[in-house]
Amino acid sequence: MTRTVKIFDTTLRDGTQGEGVSLSVEDKLKIAQKLDALGVTYIEGGWPGSNNKDIEFFVRVKELELQHAKVTAFGSTRRKDSQAAQDPNLNRILEVGVSVATIFGKSWDFHVHTAIQTTLEENLAMIYDSVHYLKQNGLEVIYDAEHFFDGYKNNPDYALATIRKAEEAGADWVVLCDTNGGTLPHEITEIVSVVRQNLKAPIGIHAHNDCELGVANSLAAVMAGATQVQGTINGYGERCGNANLVSIIPNLQLKLKYEVISEEQIATLTSVARYVSEIANMHMPVNQPYVGAAAFAHKGGIHVSAILRNSSTYEHLKPELVGNKQRVLVSELAGQSNLVFKAQEMGLEFDTSNQQTKQLIEQIKEMEHQGYQFEGADATLELLIRNAYGQLEEIFTLESFKIMVAKNLNQPVISEAIVKIKVHGETCYNAAEGNGPVNALDNALRKSLMAYYPGIQNVHLSDYKVRVLDEKDATAGKVRVLIESSDFQNNWSTVGVSENIIEASWQALADSIRYALLNQTRSDNKPEEQKERLGLVNH
Amino acid sequence: MTRTVKIFDTTLRDGTQGEGVSLSVEDKLKIAQKLDALGVTYIEGGWPGSNNKDIEFFVRVKELELQHAKVTAFGSTRRKDSQAAQDPNLNRILEVGVSVATIFGKSWDFHVHTAIQTTLEENLAMIYDSVHYLKQNGLEVIYDAEHFFDGYKNNPDYALATIRKAEEAGADWVVLCDTNGGTLPHEITEIVSVVRQNLKAPIGIHAHNDCELGVANSLAAVMAGATQVQGTINGYGERCGNANLVSIIPNLQLKLKYEVISEEQIATLTSVARYVSEIANMHMPVNQPYVGAAAFAHKGGIHVSAILRNSSTYEHLKPELVGNKQRVLVSELAGQSNLVFKAQEMGLEFDTSNQQTKQLIEQIKEMEHQGYQFEGADATLELLIRNAYGQLEEIFTLESFKIMVAKNLNQPVISEAIVKIKVHGETCYNAAEGNGPVNALDNALRKSLMAYYPGIQNVHLSDYKVRVLDEKDATAGKVRVLIESSDFQNNWSTVGVSENIIEASWQALADSIRYALLNQTRSDNKPEEQKERLGLVNH
Repeated sequence: MTRTVKIFDTTLRDGTQGEGVSLSVEDKLKIAQKLDALGVTYIEGGWPGSNNKDIEFFVRVKELELQHAKVTAFGSTRRKDSQAAQDPNLNRILEVGVSVATIFGKSWDFHVHTAIQTTLEENLAMIYDSVHYLKQNGLEVIYDAEHFFDGYKNNPDYALATIRKAEEAGADWVVLCDTNGGTLPHEITEIVSVVRQNLKAPIGIHAHNDCELGVANSLAAVMAGATQVQGTINGYGERCGNANLVSIIPNLQLKLKYEVISEEQIATLTSVARYVSEIANMHMPVNQPYVGAAAFAHKGGIHVSAILRNSSTYEHLKPELVGNKQRVLVSELAGQSNLVFKAQEMGLEFDTSNQQTKQLIEQIKEMEHQGYQFEGADATLELLIRNAYGQLEEIFTLESFKIMVAKNLNQPVISEAIVKIKVHGETCYNAAEGNGPVNALDNALRKSLMAYYPGIQNVHLSDYKVRVLDEKDATAGKVRVLIESSDFQNNWSTVGVSENIIEASWQALADSIRYALLNQTRSDNKPEEQKERLGLVNH
Repeated sequence: MTRTVKIFDTTLRDGTQGEGVSLSVEDKLKIAQKLDALGVTYIEGGWPGSNNKDIEFFVRVKELELQHAKVTAFGSTRRKDSQAAQDPNLNRILEVGVSVATIFGKSWDFHVHTAIQTTLEENLAMIYDSVHYLKQNGLEVIYDAEHFFDGYKNNPDYALATIRKAEEAGADWVVLCDTNGGTLPHEITEIVSVVRQNLKAPIGIHAHNDCELGVANSLAAVMAGATQVQGTINGYGERCGNANLVSIIPNLQLKLKYEVISEEQIATLTSVARYVSEIANMHMPVNQPYVGAAAFAHKGGIHVSAILRNSSTYEHLKPELVGNKQRVLVSELAGQSNLVFKAQEMGLEFDTSNQQTKQLIEQIKEMEHQGYQFEGADATLELLIRNAYGQLEEIFTLESFKIMVAKNLNQPVISEAIVKIKVHGETCYNAAEGNGPVNALDNALRKSLMAYYPGIQNVHLSDYKVRVLDEKDATAGKVRVLIESSDFQNNWSTVGVSENIIEASWQALADSIRYALLNQTRSDNKPEEQKERLGLVNH
């Protein structure tokens, strides 16, 4: 039995069916390059028979000269009662010039009757003719058996007959699709085993996540003999998404010891997942398995002191294997051992007995008492630690700010901000509008800093959260604002607390910008890297 | 073999270890009521030995008189080389007055040496003594075998010895924990089967999601003989989260036909999941299995036309079974039936075929499209329904508002608001200060209304939540504000959506006040009750 599994990525086709996912041709080309470097075997680029954006992708992807991956185009079997050679959908696949075609056909008798409304015999002919036509034209053909598991449960003989037809016509792969995502792992195991006994062609699995079992179903299929896994980066896809390759790859390779991609490639998994989420403009959940910011984060004090002794006590895997890293969240629960760990991460000697450290711990305790929370605000914590050790350059200081928000009946609301800061000894005084008061503040602050730090234009706020702390009298109570920022390479989070939502937002905003510019200062001795980070060179 | 599975919810304990999850005692009490109504068997409320907020929860939860669920307190086995009866942690569990204790002990020899640094023998004694002491004191005892699967893989005999000790001491349940979340489903199947043969006590499973297999591992354990499943709502929890009960319950009950909760209870699953996400102020992923807004949404053209013919063609389950809805045919709103139900609650005849109703449904659809959500905003929904039926007296109308927030170096921040409204045909123009801009708005609005409705002084805002909707460009994106209000007898919630946080807050604030005064109008014919509600009589 082979221990090699091929990865078929459909982020660019099935992934774009996900709510909120929308990719331009440029986006798709960028992602294709990343997928190629990651080491996937197939990249499904789109459905040329269904839209022109996809055709443009197939034209332009050839210029990229991918190293490893084969690009494949998707389509359906020929229409009922017609000729494969005259089918526009199949011919479109030939026209775009791919070496691999992926076509889907019906396995479920109910669907043959209900969705395409033809006879069971004609459906078999549609499958045979379509695969045969593409093979005759020299393509590698992957046959996707849509609704295979539902079809098998309803009429096993017919479902098996459909994939035997595809095999007979020369299909290089038969991929069993759980299109509705409702099949359970033990059913997958059983059905894939039966197919294994009935087919010579290699088998693939295409799972969806409707029961939160997309990953488990993919593993079950591989363990029952499938050697191709279809899925998407971060599990993007229709409804609850496709099976998530970002979890499947390390499960197969690092846990089950299949050969999937190289050690070096799997170490880029975290950066690939985050890159694709940036390009797709999708929020990356902090708790995403393997690659999320919290995937190897530790909060409880008991855990942390054990982790410091031996990291495998509370980690199922070394985070570096997938390019992620351990993180310790500072919270009241955990205390001093967490801070020690944080400082070590920053390369600071952290002597718990010296005066600065004691003061810092007191300060953090006092701030937590006031409602600050550092577990989701690493950047603010780093600024505090650096400040305590005299390692924080004062980038700007606030003199004053003022915001105004005005609403008149039936008019759009107006938000303006005036910000006065000192930068390198000079006073900067600027005003700006915004979609809301915090956006106006942000815009006015940037206006002043732009002259000194043009790279700030690459820094953007990616999330903003507000929580009322004292619930007795809500809007008179304290609020905590968390801001997440990004410069396309790194993400960082900052926190502010005040009775006033605007002041709390200002604190988190100012820390975010300080942190971005601190990193800029720190990379002064690496001018090229700095330029690149700040977007001053073109790629 | 029993077909009944008990659900053990640890949202309030393990769930709060998740990054970004932070629950006040009030929040925990609200969630406990929802969990009770959902039909879980155990609610783990916290770790009384570790923090005082948890102790307050255990005191106050008794006043709720839960119908179904048993509340349990968490703790560890006694310290090494000491007496169980003198252990502060165990005694704290007895003091908080729960009928069920959940205590965890070590199963992994490596952890015994590394984390607690004692002998294997002493660890067995710690388990025996602790369970025995709690049993002697009349409690039901659930023993959580921490790291059981890792322990078993390293030293099966010792791992089995630890749980046999717990059983021998009288533990009512032995729960096998995959604490690091690194175990795969086929390993779970194998190890649970072995335990099943070695133990008489009923077995539970406690899984984590580090390999995106938390749900699959829970199912595998149940199929191998476990009859209790521990997990959290929406899978909140440390690192990648705990096993997600919101997916496990329907998988067990609707797919595998175990008896878990009633049909009526499972139909509230979507609303429970969304309620908890609102309370915890966590973003609810649209693609969350079973309960996400996109879980039964259909985008592809082929799917949609097939769905129109027969919905089971592209749906693995009827969404109504879990209280969710398809998003092609019906409005965005949580189904027309909810509207009918709401209207009936208000004593309105609700004819779904008349023109007003159709317009109302269109309006709600459009608002939901803009980002409104009525799940946690019943009062706003009631105002909309009353308005559509011409049963909403215009209490006040806005002419204009303006707010200013100013901060000068080392000075406290100042917030002022000017509000101009029309009340009973008269223009009222007032200014006020506040602790923040929304509080200033609230104060200025109240100043104007006070002369007409003195009872308004008893209305206060009890919670205020902000969520960014469009995560692409946070502060420039849309925000949804939820306000919860109270007049000491009733609570109600309102919602506002805008690109501008101040305007969104105004909408929710204005609705809150309108709703309070609407109730006042309605109780005109019951002057005593009205006086009492509005605080005009002293208690």
